[in-house]
Amino acid sequence: MNGAESLVRTLVEGGVDVCFTNPGTSEMHFCAALDRVEGMRCILGLFEGVVTGAADGYGRMKDGPAATLLHTGPGLGNGLANLHNARKALTPVVNIVGEHATYHIRHDAPLTSDIEGIARPVSDWVKTCPDAASVAVDGAQAIAEARTAPGRIATLILPADTAWNEAGGVAGAPAVPPPAPAAGEAVRDCADALRSGEPCMILLGHRALRADATEVAGRIAARTGAELRIEFGAARCERGAGRVTPDRIPYVVDEAFGVTGRLRHMILVGARTPVAFFAYPGKPSVLIPETCRTHLLAPAAGDAMGALEWLADEVGANDAEPARETEQRPALESGGLTIDKIASAIGRLMPEGCIVDDEAITSGRMLHAYTRGCPPHDWLFGTGGSIGRALPSATGAAVACPDRKVLCLSGDGSAMYTIQALWTQAREGLDVVTVIYNNRTYAILHGELRNVGANPGPKARDMFDLDRPDLDWVRMANGLGVEAARAETAEAFNRALAAAFASPGPFLIDAVI
Amino acid sequence: MNGAESLVRTLVEGGVDVCFTNPGTSEMHFCAALDRVEGMRCILGLFEGVVTGAADGYGRMKDGPAATLLHTGPGLGNGLANLHNARKALTPVVNIVGEHATYHIRHDAPLTSDIEGIARPVSDWVKTCPDAASVAVDGAQAIAEARTAPGRIATLILPADTAWNEAGGVAGAPAVPPPAPAAGEAVRDCADALRSGEPCMILLGHRALRADATEVAGRIAARTGAELRIEFGAARCERGAGRVTPDRIPYVVDEAFGVTGRLRHMILVGARTPVAFFAYPGKPSVLIPETCRTHLLAPAAGDAMGALEWLADEVGANDAEPARETEQRPALESGGLTIDKIASAIGRLMPEGCIVDDEAITSGRMLHAYTRGCPPHDWLFGTGGSIGRALPSATGAAVACPDRKVLCLSGDGSAMYTIQALWTQAREGLDVVTVIYNNRTYAILHGELRNVGANPGPKARDMFDLDRPDLDWVRMANGLGVEAARAETAEAFNRALAAAFASPGPFLIDAVI
Repeated sequence: MNGAESLVRTLVEGGVDVCFTNPGTSEMHFCAALDRVEGMRCILGLFEGVVTGAADGYGRMKDGPAATLLHTGPGLGNGLANLHNARKALTPVVNIVGEHATYHIRHDAPLTSDIEGIARPVSDWVKTCPDAASVAVDGAQAIAEARTAPGRIATLILPADTAWNEAGGVAGAPAVPPPAPAAGEAVRDCADALRSGEPCMILLGHRALRADATEVAGRIAARTGAELRIEFGAARCERGAGRVTPDRIPYVVDEAFGVTGRLRHMILVGARTPVAFFAYPGKPSVLIPETCRTHLLAPAAGDAMGALEWLADEVGANDAEPARETEQRPALESGGLTIDKIASAIGRLMPEGCIVDDEAITSGRMLHAYTRGCPPHDWLFGTGGSIGRALPSATGAAVACPDRKVLCLSGDGSAMYTIQALWTQAREGLDVVTVIYNNRTYAILHGELRNVGANPGPKARDMFDLDRPDLDWVRMANGLGVEAARAETAEAFNRALAAAFASPGPFLIDAVI
Repeated sequence: MNGAESLVRTLVEGGVDVCFTNPGTSEMHFCAALDRVEGMRCILGLFEGVVTGAADGYGRMKDGPAATLLHTGPGLGNGLANLHNARKALTPVVNIVGEHATYHIRHDAPLTSDIEGIARPVSDWVKTCPDAASVAVDGAQAIAEARTAPGRIATLILPADTAWNEAGGVAGAPAVPPPAPAAGEAVRDCADALRSGEPCMILLGHRALRADATEVAGRIAARTGAELRIEFGAARCERGAGRVTPDRIPYVVDEAFGVTGRLRHMILVGARTPVAFFAYPGKPSVLIPETCRTHLLAPAAGDAMGALEWLADEVGANDAEPARETEQRPALESGGLTIDKIASAIGRLMPEGCIVDDEAITSGRMLHAYTRGCPPHDWLFGTGGSIGRALPSATGAAVACPDRKVLCLSGDGSAMYTIQALWTQAREGLDVVTVIYNNRTYAILHGELRNVGANPGPKARDMFDLDRPDLDWVRMANGLGVEAARAETAEAFNRALAAAFASPGPFLIDAVI
């Protein structure tokens, strides 16, 4: 067996059985091996941002890595933005990047580039495989690196001759170190803060956003009176009726201080001290007052659940009753379409187990209030700030969870970065309903202009508006093989959303607001 | 004036008066300055690969840099592939990349990334501006770096507070060192090779591909019997009737040796020793025999024209008559559409001064024979091997040359990476005719599979075919605001191409082959 086949077999043995691909010449042997090895599902994306974004969504929902297959440095470059997002989400990903044959690199052919240099800023682990005999062991190591808590990006660069030369065989993935256990000192410090009688917030992130952890955190909050919040860039939170569903730390600096301003303690569970998305003149970067002490109960790489249970024990919260959401849904609206009416329809119609992939940006900020009483569901937020995330991520989430509906919410500006994802959804028949908030502008930038103190004239505004010409989302979706409908009224939106949830396969709604 | 305004003014003073943009919050002050400074044309792209690819096409045609405006590390990442292509084309580009405010970076906000690390693999010069007072001087230095022969990528990273703080003023761009002059020793060495009576080829690249240089090279070839060729990845060659129009070194290794196999000398003028695009098992990387000596007349950074004139003098070729193309055009074809019939139509109908941006890949290899007798025109080839280049590059070329028609030839696979370029063409009313070679596959990869000795089964082939579902190019183009027509016969293609050349603004032809 050649190196490529030894890698595919090693990936499958190691539980990495989905590969999002955009291959080129250097990856031919990997592709050819797919027909000799059982158990690897390969999914083509027409642009690498789709590939890496899908791996992000997949990893968030699967709690394990997908592989990506990318063509040399520029292919990796095209996937960089969504790898950045995946890394900030602490999503496990195994990147396989094809490289020229080892002896060809020095000739500086057109595609020669510093692949390690491109990989490093978005990877926790980078290795160039030296020879075919090492491919399996390096591949197994990449899996272990990706699976290491809190979830990491591992990039294995595979020169073409290491793929086509004869290799030894399959390698088993090394054992992954378990998450760092809870520390008694940290638990007691947090317990002291909770008992201090001073204003205290428990901020949840990463694995502490799952329902079992929010339940325990909810008990602690109920017992101690601490406020419960989740981090702004929550990669995946389980929420909805019957669950503890805390609000996020707000994006806008003044609003964030509105909820943190009086705090004296912040207990961090899988989360970091909240910081502003951007700096603004005269505003602080850190979103808690200087008089607020932070207490790290568990880092993202730690055992958040174990630490929360210990803390609950310590403060006597085991029998406390958390504030769970009661089941309730908003009523459907009528008349001209607005973002509130879209939120009502989503809250009314979202099916149980829905995965909401949220890149609605400015249009989505009130969505969470409308949906907290919906049946249990997952919500995926942006983590790295690079837009063009949701359409690919929803694609990957649908691959990871074929029995669940995925609802992808995207601004029109955001969707244009990786619109190619729709084609992959059509090809794979994925159950993704995409809602495009069609406001014909990068709406967030109008607010940001004010926040940074810039006074835009017509030339500046022209850089933020998408209305010259208008984008026709129905035609674009149809061109990519996806059915679509345009909604200008709440009635039309309600009808389209209900129909999309009721039928299998991808569907796009152009929500004109 | 703030730092952003001092930068915009410095760019305009330095002759950089076009900026392709995809801005975010960090770039607000740059955008706001556009309304206070006369003379900067800002052009929005909906994806950064469009922005950087447009800068490549613009720089190739203008012989000077455009600026790009990109949002932090991920925005630069999205533009990486076409910066790679631009760098391999030796195109001058000034990248302005917004970064968090200097004091905000350490907080590791969502968009924080190692921007310098991302920039370095595709840049010849990288600098992070330290403060507002330095912005103008650093911007001026970036212009000079970009303009330095043979043409370079300069990336200036601009923290938000350096943009919004008070700055000093405008800086003049430092003097750019002239191209290295021809060296007598090199000229005499090349003359000796030409007089040796042994088989000799003159290989032209970069500035030696312009009509004045090919004319002189043609005289030398005529006098000495040397063969004349151009490099495979020719960034821009001036060719057509009345001009010397040499063929390229072939892509396929065996075909390349078919033209170089008997050579004893290769004279390099602005070109490098030809190497294979990829390594293939059992095939050499270098595309000349070991017995062939190379002679460097002028590097890409050198004065190719001066060196050629000196060499012509040395070998007594000043009055030689070069083999110029005679004006001739193929006849229009009829019946089912094929790539040959497309080539005939292009050869028949291409207007004088046309700029052909060629990413037709497998479908385009015979095009050059059909068009060599067309009226004088420019031809832009891929240089870095990363596909998704032509639609953006054609956009930039049309901005650089508003009085010329641009013909963009793209494979369907290639066009899908940066399809968003069509919207920018519509917005700016650019005269670009795009032909999509719709063969529903990454056709080149089928050949590459054989060349690397891989045996594809159905799962592998599924990774190279685009026919599930078929892409509807007319709907996609219309959705992006561009008129389009589908052609399944030669008659329909001929009609569509003639109409597209005859009317202003962008048009797309879906050429079904």
